[in-house]
Amino acid sequence: MKESSSAFQSIALLQFSPVRSDPEQNLETIAGLLKRTGADVVVLPELCSTGYFFTDPDELRPMAETPDGGSLCSLVRKHASEQGCVLCAGFAERNRQQIYNSAILAFPDGRYHIYRKSHLFYRESDVFRPGDTGFSVHEWNGVRYGVMICYDWRFPESCRTLALLGCDVVLHPSNLVAPASLWRPTMQTRAIENRIVAATANRTGTERVEDEVLEFSGESQIVDCNGTALAIGSADGEEVVEAQVDISRCRNKAFNAYNDILRDRRPNLYLNEAP
Amino acid sequence: MKESSSAFQSIALLQFSPVRSDPEQNLETIAGLLKRTGADVVVLPELCSTGYFFTDPDELRPMAETPDGGSLCSLVRKHASEQGCVLCAGFAERNRQQIYNSAILAFPDGRYHIYRKSHLFYRESDVFRPGDTGFSVHEWNGVRYGVMICYDWRFPESCRTLALLGCDVVLHPSNLVAPASLWRPTMQTRAIENRIVAATANRTGTERVEDEVLEFSGESQIVDCNGTALAIGSADGEEVVEAQVDISRCRNKAFNAYNDILRDRRPNLYLNEAP
Repeated sequence: MKESSSAFQSIALLQFSPVRSDPEQNLETIAGLLKRTGADVVVLPELCSTGYFFTDPDELRPMAETPDGGSLCSLVRKHASEQGCVLCAGFAERNRQQIYNSAILAFPDGRYHIYRKSHLFYRESDVFRPGDTGFSVHEWNGVRYGVMICYDWRFPESCRTLALLGCDVVLHPSNLVAPASLWRPTMQTRAIENRIVAATANRTGTERVEDEVLEFSGESQIVDCNGTALAIGSADGEEVVEAQVDISRCRNKAFNAYNDILRDRRPNLYLNEAP
Repeated sequence: MKESSSAFQSIALLQFSPVRSDPEQNLETIAGLLKRTGADVVVLPELCSTGYFFTDPDELRPMAETPDGGSLCSLVRKHASEQGCVLCAGFAERNRQQIYNSAILAFPDGRYHIYRKSHLFYRESDVFRPGDTGFSVHEWNGVRYGVMICYDWRFPESCRTLALLGCDVVLHPSNLVAPASLWRPTMQTRAIENRIVAATANRTGTERVEDEVLEFSGESQIVDCNGTALAIGSADGEEVVEAQVDISRCRNKAFNAYNDILRDRRPNLYLNEAP
């Protein structure tokens, strides 16, 4: 992709309410949603095949899968190959006896990358290992993609790290229980402060464990690199949220002859840890 | 301040339109505005005594001042002592032949600290040296204050560095030309991602150099540590924008039994510079 030429891409977020502990049902729903879009880039929510709210690793482990053989990952990789699209989906990853809250990023040529969630939310730490992959950027067809999952939104370092690695588009599978009024504007800020596209596929519905109910906030959102929300889903609908995004604008971090938001940084003045 | 007890403070932002190159007039306006508030913490805009839009250092230098002897800094320090308040104001600082875009933070006991703007905006780099103080936190009466200036807003590292240093309240003298629809939500994000109070005193009005006119966006804003805008000024009025803020809530970075937004950080996974 040349930095000066426009390069429009269509992005689709597949918003739905996964059924807890029913991968077969969820894969059927996902397959149906995938048929409803021909977008260049498709994003599914976090843990989209298993559901979210687990507190016992022994309950989740039998449903967790490996990227090369699992049913969700196989569907994702096959769809990316057959449709020639980039596809990102959250899933429970099994690695020996450990479980990670992961996302697969699959390309049409069969390559795929796994991101393991860096910041675990609430009772996830009872079930998942903290992610050990860190953030990374992967190119397809001249566009550079990065992945973060759900609660990573709250840490500006997630998107900043991706931007410093050259990311154009952040794909963000989520099961957000935070109010949309909190996370949506923050994702707009992530776009503004890095001049990146941010695509959050958030689930809807509720899940219960014992007496506790989690309610997911939907409103899946695609933000352009100026921070404008180009498309926003409903709070509770099963839907395909789509927008056309000009990726080439992400490459120009300057907004006048003097200022460039990455070159203007003063790394020597920043702390990464409390003294 | 105990972490569990509430500790309300009143914050006042003095929003007005400084007259370019007329410190005498501006000091009179400032003195008048100061009489209109008895707040615990008072914030004035960036470069509030000289005006903003200079492109020739030789024009600004005669108006630039030293913190110990200059007219704006003397007024600020005297007012802080006499009224027993914390006062922060932006000014052109002269240090030998160099000029910095600085802010003074003055306490009732006569102590004061100088912050020199880290990120210079637009033609400021024709006039000012890049700030060399870095970010720092200063305590008065159990509350920890940090300072950043205007365009520092766009870099999450500014507030993050202050938060890692223990900051409760970020004082933010500004001459923002960015639309309020861009910077106001971003400052709310800064509060959310760090659980800090953020107080932006932005100027109003316009300034012209040759054919170029800069328009300042007003809408001075006080945000609590949950990201709620407690008070917002008008786009073009001269006014005192005030709110009561519970500072004690800034100290608790946890929002459930599992998550604490500073402890949850994964510094080893973050980049500070492009590889």
